[in-house]
Amino acid sequence: MAEEHRLPLGFRAAGYACGIKSDPQKLDLALFVSERPCAAAGVFTQNEVVGAPVKVCRERLPRETARGVIINSGNANACTGQTGIDDAVWVTAQVAGQIDCAAEDVLVCSTGVIGHFLPLDKLEAGIPSAASALDDGNHAFLAAARAMMTTDTVPKQASRTIRIKQGEVTISGACKGAAMIAPNMATMLAVVMTDARMSPAALESALQQAVDRSFNCISVDQHTSTSDTVLLLANGASGIEVDGGSQEFQQALEEVCRELALQIIRDAEGAEHFVTIDVTGARNREEAARIARSVADSPLVKTAITGNDPNWGRIVSAAGYAGVPFAEEECSLTINGHAVYERGAPTGIEEGPVSAAMQTGDVSIGLVIGRGEGACRFWTCDLTAEYVRLNSEYTT
Amino acid sequence: MAEEHRLPLGFRAAGYACGIKSDPQKLDLALFVSERPCAAAGVFTQNEVVGAPVKVCRERLPRETARGVIINSGNANACTGQTGIDDAVWVTAQVAGQIDCAAEDVLVCSTGVIGHFLPLDKLEAGIPSAASALDDGNHAFLAAARAMMTTDTVPKQASRTIRIKQGEVTISGACKGAAMIAPNMATMLAVVMTDARMSPAALESALQQAVDRSFNCISVDQHTSTSDTVLLLANGASGIEVDGGSQEFQQALEEVCRELALQIIRDAEGAEHFVTIDVTGARNREEAARIARSVADSPLVKTAITGNDPNWGRIVSAAGYAGVPFAEEECSLTINGHAVYERGAPTGIEEGPVSAAMQTGDVSIGLVIGRGEGACRFWTCDLTAEYVRLNSEYTT
Repeated sequence: MAEEHRLPLGFRAAGYACGIKSDPQKLDLALFVSERPCAAAGVFTQNEVVGAPVKVCRERLPRETARGVIINSGNANACTGQTGIDDAVWVTAQVAGQIDCAAEDVLVCSTGVIGHFLPLDKLEAGIPSAASALDDGNHAFLAAARAMMTTDTVPKQASRTIRIKQGEVTISGACKGAAMIAPNMATMLAVVMTDARMSPAALESALQQAVDRSFNCISVDQHTSTSDTVLLLANGASGIEVDGGSQEFQQALEEVCRELALQIIRDAEGAEHFVTIDVTGARNREEAARIARSVADSPLVKTAITGNDPNWGRIVSAAGYAGVPFAEEECSLTINGHAVYERGAPTGIEEGPVSAAMQTGDVSIGLVIGRGEGACRFWTCDLTAEYVRLNSEYTT
Repeated sequence: MAEEHRLPLGFRAAGYACGIKSDPQKLDLALFVSERPCAAAGVFTQNEVVGAPVKVCRERLPRETARGVIINSGNANACTGQTGIDDAVWVTAQVAGQIDCAAEDVLVCSTGVIGHFLPLDKLEAGIPSAASALDDGNHAFLAAARAMMTTDTVPKQASRTIRIKQGEVTISGACKGAAMIAPNMATMLAVVMTDARMSPAALESALQQAVDRSFNCISVDQHTSTSDTVLLLANGASGIEVDGGSQEFQQALEEVCRELALQIIRDAEGAEHFVTIDVTGARNREEAARIARSVADSPLVKTAITGNDPNWGRIVSAAGYAGVPFAEEECSLTINGHAVYERGAPTGIEEGPVSAAMQTGDVSIGLVIGRGEGACRFWTCDLTAEYVRLNSEYTT
């Protein structure tokens, strides 16, 4: 059973099956709507090739008067040229007609097959039905989270309620993960909502910082999608004003984002191990992150983990080609707490107990660089034959 | 049957089984020796963590008086600290004693398990035996190529004889490829020899250019080894002087290097498809290469190819996250000659015939960026469940 998560005050959600996915029973349309105008900010894919919804959202954000987000799964509306952009704008206008606002106040995300135009007829019929199902209950929030899914096996939600000043503020989010079936495209989408009152500028900076330490610190297969999007909406319904300097809010926001990001790793296609990589002692955080990502994305490291093999040579050498200068004599490595490599030399540890610790399915890699104070925690999964099978099945 | 390749004039080779590998019948010691002093140059791994032999060779190259190369497989002598360096130097001295030169005139490469010290007793006994087997015949050259192998399934050799000025010059090389079994480390090693007479400086620049267009344009799994090394020796035994500007020599050298590099891709672990990626229309060669490498290293592109799936969305989006700016409206893509994406829009081609073309095992991807004249040809293979199986088997 999915844990119960509630929406922040003043938000409603809905999930609806409008027939974009081949199975007409499957939810494929999610709506998140605020009863009042929200501050809104977004963080988007760094890919040069971006889906039409990303182009539309980038133009509209940050803004002070957002009212809602529409997400469809089953079709990414990416690589669809000007028609795709026109379609995305049209979709937001349909939602705006239902909730009585300007089209520009509606944001849009799409995930699914690439290179196909959106089925506008199905959306035209489905959007009013989805709008009439909008509800502030936990069930509606869960339905919206389900409607975002592609090959995710579980819906992904997280929430925190914290006390700030004179009252309570809630932050809740839903996301979908990186799972792919040919010819579909992985996409990471998340919507995070809060009933705090914040300026768009404060919201944007809080979101960028939270994403840098959550969604930007995970990798399943290093393939940055055309449509990755994280949106944050703040409607102020709690009456609590949060300024950009609030540590409590920032921490809670980061926790929500991290919880969502880690759900993506735990649900990665074919994955059997959940891997945490801590790089410390780098000159700065950016260099630590570059090393962590290099380790996380090495197929040789990933397959060693699949086999519960404490193959430290693969880890150290993956760190070594990250493009960050360091001296191997200052480099040490632990696997699940066992020191396997210390200051450039093998410790000669028995591998059996290390391998046994890896068999739990949780692997933690601690890499010390010895150059400074920069640190980064990064999460990934292993690479299994099942991942290959799922992504090489010819389905067209 | 392996093709017959001959050594350039004045070179001898040997392959010997000295017992470093667990199977005592397997060749694990290769010698390449010139009867007279050679000009020598090398190109090495860019990894921050490098094997001891790389450190020793880097210090000795370029040089005018090299006499030979010793290569052992079965042990990488990497991550072995100062002891490893001392051992590598000792090995060159043992060879020098056999062929009557200074230790500094002998180069050394090692490939195999990482983090273990070389078995000096076995080398001490094996080196004299290998030296006494030195021969200028094709059989000895083939034995040396075999002795370099780790999990390669076939020995890899290439040669060209060209007419320059008043006579003939031969360029011949052998290499081993990127194939891994836990806990071993992939390593790409190549030795190329010529009987042309060249200065070390001209040799080094010719080698760097040839490697940039051959070994630096292949990737099996993006994991740069600690020990990658390409050595080029020129002993002048043909009597033909080649200066740095010789186009014929440069072209023949590139052909030998490319032929060796492509043998590595064809023998990559678990690979079922040989993939050629041509990126054209980039602003310069470096940007074209960056895009090509991003496509080659995407697990999603590789698994689509495994399934003969002409999944152009994965290819275009992998190009998009290479860190090279371009506009998708200027981007076009062909797969095995079929136009699947043109100036930012799908061509709507039937996928059946494209998939059928991919089933031949040879896949060619043509990506046009539309920004300039920069081009790069890059080679890779697919990612199969067999690759995962081979690299996740727990063998320690």
